[in-house]
Amino acid sequence: MSGSIYGNIFKISTWGESHGKALGVVVDGCPAGVHIDEEIIQQDLDRRRPGAFKYGTKRNESDSVQILSGVFDGITTGTPVSLIVFNKDQKSRDYGNIMNVFRPGHADYTFQSKYGIRDYRGGGRSSGRETLSRTAAGAIARACLKELGIEVYAYTKSIGNVTANTFDRNEIMQNPFCMPDRKAAEEAAVLMEKTAASQDSLGGIIECIADGVPAGVGETVFDKLDACLSKAVMSIGAVKGVEIGAGFSAAGMHGSENNDSFTAINGKAAKLTNNSGGILGGMSDGSQIIIRAAFKPTPSISRPQKTINKNIEEEEIIIKGRHDPVIVPRAVVVTEAMVMITLLDLMLVNMSARIENVKKIYKG
Amino acid sequence: MSGSIYGNIFKISTWGESHGKALGVVVDGCPAGVHIDEEIIQQDLDRRRPGAFKYGTKRNESDSVQILSGVFDGITTGTPVSLIVFNKDQKSRDYGNIMNVFRPGHADYTFQSKYGIRDYRGGGRSSGRETLSRTAAGAIARACLKELGIEVYAYTKSIGNVTANTFDRNEIMQNPFCMPDRKAAEEAAVLMEKTAASQDSLGGIIECIADGVPAGVGETVFDKLDACLSKAVMSIGAVKGVEIGAGFSAAGMHGSENNDSFTAINGKAAKLTNNSGGILGGMSDGSQIIIRAAFKPTPSISRPQKTINKNIEEEEIIIKGRHDPVIVPRAVVVTEAMVMITLLDLMLVNMSARIENVKKIYKG
Amino acid sequence: MSGSIYGNIFKISTWGESHGKALGVVVDGCPAGVHIDEEIIQQDLDRRRPGAFKYGTKRNESDSVQILSGVFDGITTGTPVSLIVFNKDQKSRDYGNIMNVFRPGHADYTFQSKYGIRDYRGGGRSSGRETLSRTAAGAIARACLKELGIEVYAYTKSIGNVTANTFDRNEIMQNPFCMPDRKAAEEAAVLMEKTAASQDSLGGIIECIADGVPAGVGETVFDKLDACLSKAVMSIGAVKGVEIGAGFSAAGMHGSENNDSFTAINGKAAKLTNNSGGILGGMSDGSQIIIRAAFKPTPSISRPQKTINKNIEEEEIIIKGRHDPVIVPRAVVVTEAMVMITLLDLMLVNMSARIENVKKIYKG
Amino acid sequence: MSGSIYGNIFKISTWGESHGKALGVVVDGCPAGVHIDEEIIQQDLDRRRPGAFKYGTKRNESDSVQILSGVFDGITTGTPVSLIVFNKDQKSRDYGNIMNVFRPGHADYTFQSKYGIRDYRGGGRSSGRETLSRTAAGAIARACLKELGIEVYAYTKSIGNVTANTFDRNEIMQNPFCMPDRKAAEEAAVLMEKTAASQDSLGGIIECIADGVPAGVGETVFDKLDACLSKAVMSIGAVKGVEIGAGFSAAGMHGSENNDSFTAINGKAAKLTNNSGGILGGMSDGSQIIIRAAFKPTPSISRPQKTINKNIEEEEIIIKGRHDPVIVPRAVVVTEAMVMITLLDLMLVNMSARIENVKKIYKG
Repeated sequence: MSGSIYGNIFKISTWGESHGKALGVVVDGCPAGVHIDEEIIQQDLDRRRPGAFKYGTKRNESDSVQILSGVFDGITTGTPVSLIVFNKDQKSRDYGNIMNVFRPGHADYTFQSKYGIRDYRGGGRSSGRETLSRTAAGAIARACLKELGIEVYAYTKSIGNVTANTFDRNEIMQNPFCMPDRKAAEEAAVLMEKTAASQDSLGGIIECIADGVPAGVGETVFDKLDACLSKAVMSIGAVKGVEIGAGFSAAGMHGSENNDSFTAINGKAAKLTNNSGGILGGMSDGSQIIIRAAFKPTPSISRPQKTINKNIEEEEIIIKGRHDPVIVPRAVVVTEAMVMITLLDLMLVNMSARIENVKKIYKG
Repeated sequence: MSGSIYGNIFKISTWGESHGKALGVVVDGCPAGVHIDEEIIQQDLDRRRPGAFKYGTKRNESDSVQILSGVFDGITTGTPVSLIVFNKDQKSRDYGNIMNVFRPGHADYTFQSKYGIRDYRGGGRSSGRETLSRTAAGAIARACLKELGIEVYAYTKSIGNVTANTFDRNEIMQNPFCMPDRKAAEEAAVLMEKTAASQDSLGGIIECIADGVPAGVGETVFDKLDACLSKAVMSIGAVKGVEIGAGFSAAGMHGSENNDSFTAINGKAAKLTNNSGGILGGMSDGSQIIIRAAFKPTPSISRPQKTINKNIEEEEIIIKGRHDPVIVPRAVVVTEAMVMITLLDLMLVNMSARIENVKKIYKG
Repeated sequence: MSGSIYGNIFKISTWGESHGKALGVVVDGCPAGVHIDEEIIQQDLDRRRPGAFKYGTKRNESDSVQILSGVFDGITTGTPVSLIVFNKDQKSRDYGNIMNVFRPGHADYTFQSKYGIRDYRGGGRSSGRETLSRTAAGAIARACLKELGIEVYAYTKSIGNVTANTFDRNEIMQNPFCMPDRKAAEEAAVLMEKTAASQDSLGGIIECIADGVPAGVGETVFDKLDACLSKAVMSIGAVKGVEIGAGFSAAGMHGSENNDSFTAINGKAAKLTNNSGGILGGMSDGSQIIIRAAFKPTPSISRPQKTINKNIEEEEIIIKGRHDPVIVPRAVVVTEAMVMITLLDLMLVNMSARIENVKKIYKG
Repeated sequence: MSGSIYGNIFKISTWGESHGKALGVVVDGCPAGVHIDEEIIQQDLDRRRPGAFKYGTKRNESDSVQILSGVFDGITTGTPVSLIVFNKDQKSRDYGNIMNVFRPGHADYTFQSKYGIRDYRGGGRSSGRETLSRTAAGAIARACLKELGIEVYAYTKSIGNVTANTFDRNEIMQNPFCMPDRKAAEEAAVLMEKTAASQDSLGGIIECIADGVPAGVGETVFDKLDACLSKAVMSIGAVKGVEIGAGFSAAGMHGSENNDSFTAINGKAAKLTNNSGGILGGMSDGSQIIIRAAFKPTPSISRPQKTINKNIEEEEIIIKGRHDPVIVPRAVVVTEAMVMITLLDLMLVNMSARIENVKKIYKG
């Protein structure tokens, strides 16, 4: 168990290293009857492709995906969908100098500690390139959720200390940071240029929304929807914090302030506020699901850093290679992917919550 | 799958409702050879017992635990350890008025939506009383971790807007909020009294530390140590946010600031700072593991609130019964429990990371 | 992981030792809305109770079950159903002489090898008494399957070398062997008396039928219905062989003989024969599911046997205590239980096989 | 969940259809530090390759495997090992006539019932070609087990009604049936020729041995070693029965006859007989593990058969294409694979059975 398999019913199994031959994912448990093709998946992959955003790695990869199984005449058959992307631009020579040295903020030291061996080329398995597989699987989840009337989208809430204060959904794909606030994006660009000039990097916060989720999704104790979403999002390499709805600010509120009052709108249950972020008692409550994730700044910076080598001797390291001075914009679609995969999986799990649902399937 | 089973190797299965006959947990996969008795478990249970802290529910429960299986002559045998606590003071009459009404901030509406039926007495399965089972299982994990030289402890970092600024470990159990800062605890008491007087409630932040965890624990992609800890802690009823090390503040830092430099101390790897919170690439890095959780204010408040009933008609509700105006202090040991269970489980999973470890077991 | 948890969606977690305080099971994932009470469960438990059959142990246990959670007003709520049976007649003194000696055919030696400690009283966790928990969980699965129009029943196909050749379902509960053939049961009684007189024991074969299972249940590669049923039934203590439909005899047939021709009966698919035992490609084919299990003779016999002790010294053992000279009749309901639990679980898993089914639940 | 993922710690995820672009497997949880290369895997694949045996399909596939990830400088790194085999000789035109008709003894009808769609080309996912992925994963398990001093091998016990009565291990790879008895193999060849001439097919029995397994492997209730092995082997397409040690014949024995007496040989525990097939109470007992599987005759036969089509109308079918008149010899290595994968997985799971083992890893 290296922990590369995820899910209960909609299960994904990812594989591949940054400078290996290829990366991919096997999706087991995708319902049959869903239209899937390589273009649908490519659309999501293109949103995290190196080069998709101005402030990204210079590595040149088309990240062209191929479907190898599980789809017949453009329709999922219920059997495992295997997706593959071959690496094209592996410049392993760039990474020779980190073979025996542990980069600060990276997984070099912990990988070596765990396994006693590591593929150091470009970070190997711990490279951000691993998220390619998540994104590809996420595109399949997206196609399924679309059939159920559910839409998931994310955007950058902040870059460094620059926060988006307005929300224009059309703006999100119009700036190099995926921010819904043009003015904030412009400020972020200034900060980014300054940061890059000083051989440094930035982090940020991504907010993800799920619209259209019916009430009752999520299991009641350990597999709560918020708990599963937290794991999903926290498992993305650079994430250091996750919050739902009011999140950390809820800790400072009074109950009377934080409680969302229920109300009836056209005979349907609704809430006057959404501090819960769409989740109560670990189950969706029918309102918008809101999750935020804090991404640390890219640990690869080209200024000299203190560190140690494999012999536990102190050394100075200067990281070369092609790195993203900020990975947040490319992580937007990755965050969506993890939310979609988790949400779909829990929706499939939830189908048998009531015997009347079971009868609906088996007794018409 | 109601999601009441948790873990990969050290698996726990919890059950019970607030006003049912009893609550309990079955621990499957506890290594054989560990000394366990009822007193060890009772110690942890007593820390979350109603009445353990000044500002808690008035429900009177001794929460006496019995070991029903899996322990022989005070030693675990490797078979499932079943623990049970009988309810004594169920006053179900207190809750009659919420049978058909959904309390804001509670799981009433979502439970009803999911299952079409709910045990409304005292919150049923969604009551905070469910954490009793987690705590009992956590005590067993604690006994195992102790054998491995690992200690896990938590404390209250903030109550409402009052934050602990100093750290005195001895102080933690000396004040009714489990804060490591006496002065902050006194301020919190003032705030609490004022809040209770206005029929309101408070939330807060708990910080949990794991000391002595060797490097390399945690799996590399989805089952990262931080991802699993996030799920574990977020699955506790009132938690709305989780962060590791520098957490959300890392999003505002530069890479040069956030990266922890490695250094060598007495020939051993160490770090100059610990923004990573002891986790790099999803694996423990040998330094202290630090996780924080934001708890929302108790949703049960006795002032009138707007809500709806089962017929989706608007109604006003006044919640009676015995509630905690703040649950944070009682949640300290619950947080420890979830961290310990998760950490131990991942340590057991990690044992087979290298073939040389497998040989160590099977070929001496 | 001691392997006491079973299932994907309908998950059971069993616990308890032969001479401990109690045994029980937690059922997580039972759909809400099913009528369950203690009587329904007791009915199945009574069929494996010591004393239910003439040729059984003399241990005196009423095996009265209590429901501790998950059922409200006689209806399952979707939360874990915890069941408990307290032991009454533990005569641990009977077993003192096996504390340091390994009984042939028993799990004493392997338990000791695995865990380095064992509860030797009455076989501890490896006692047949463990099947009580399976049976109780099976009764809940039975109630669910009944709602879906599915019936599962088993009977004794052979005792020692005496085989049932006729099938009268009403006869099954009329003789002490649960055979559907009165004449065979009479022969078995003669054989049993003779065997008991010579301080020996018998085994036998149980056949189990599932009626009404729709086509398509079972997953397509590793979690085939037949594969899962095999595991389920082989996990019952004394089982040494499992077969589906024609089973081992299929290995000697020609394809033309073994293939079941499809036919149409009233516009519905049917088969002219049922060598497949109702399973093709790991999925139910709509015909009767047929599984057979071979039970070895009870290893506890009172005549002297050669063995070794904990110091690996040869010794002779005479097993005292209260044993079943044949456990097959009591295992009939246990076999049903394992088949029902597995079948129900795979039916719940199968609900999401098609996106149109997912839509049926979420989009009406 | 299409059930294409298998294992607890050593987890495999298989994918691919008979006439798709490729087939493969991802192995997650292989311990780091094991020497693996494409030749090692190819050796096992060559033993099930079309054309490996005289009486096999005429499909021409080299089945050349590529390692895409998880291996660095010939050593496993602990990350997922992805293996791929591209299909070369897909003649899909051969299968056009079965698009709308259900072949008797095949999974056509059940696949259609479950998913409402199927890739009918060459049987799609239910083709025996799926076992290629199992075999490739099995080769990796073999390399791991070799490091632990464990050898697993299988052979054909019977073909149709011809049974091997002698055992010469060197003979196994010398005849087209993998029988350890040359004379029986010659008789089987006569039977095979006769059967093929009458456009019919044969089944048989495979026996598999595991040597060198220490006592205590296997979990004690549901995940018994024999239960898991049964599932593993029963999940191979054509298997209809599984037995351990004396198996079905144990049902006809007396306890005194079936019990294996323990004895001491050079101060070590041993058994005078091995009716248990090396497993007691679900755990390995230190003697040879013996499992047998009954394979039904190949359902694809070229003589006319009665069946129905998608409209549930009766029809006659003549199956064309390239089929194995007996698949047993090619299934020998597949059986080994499933046994090895299962055994290794349970050995990894078993590592944490005792706290002293856990200490051995973490505290030296």
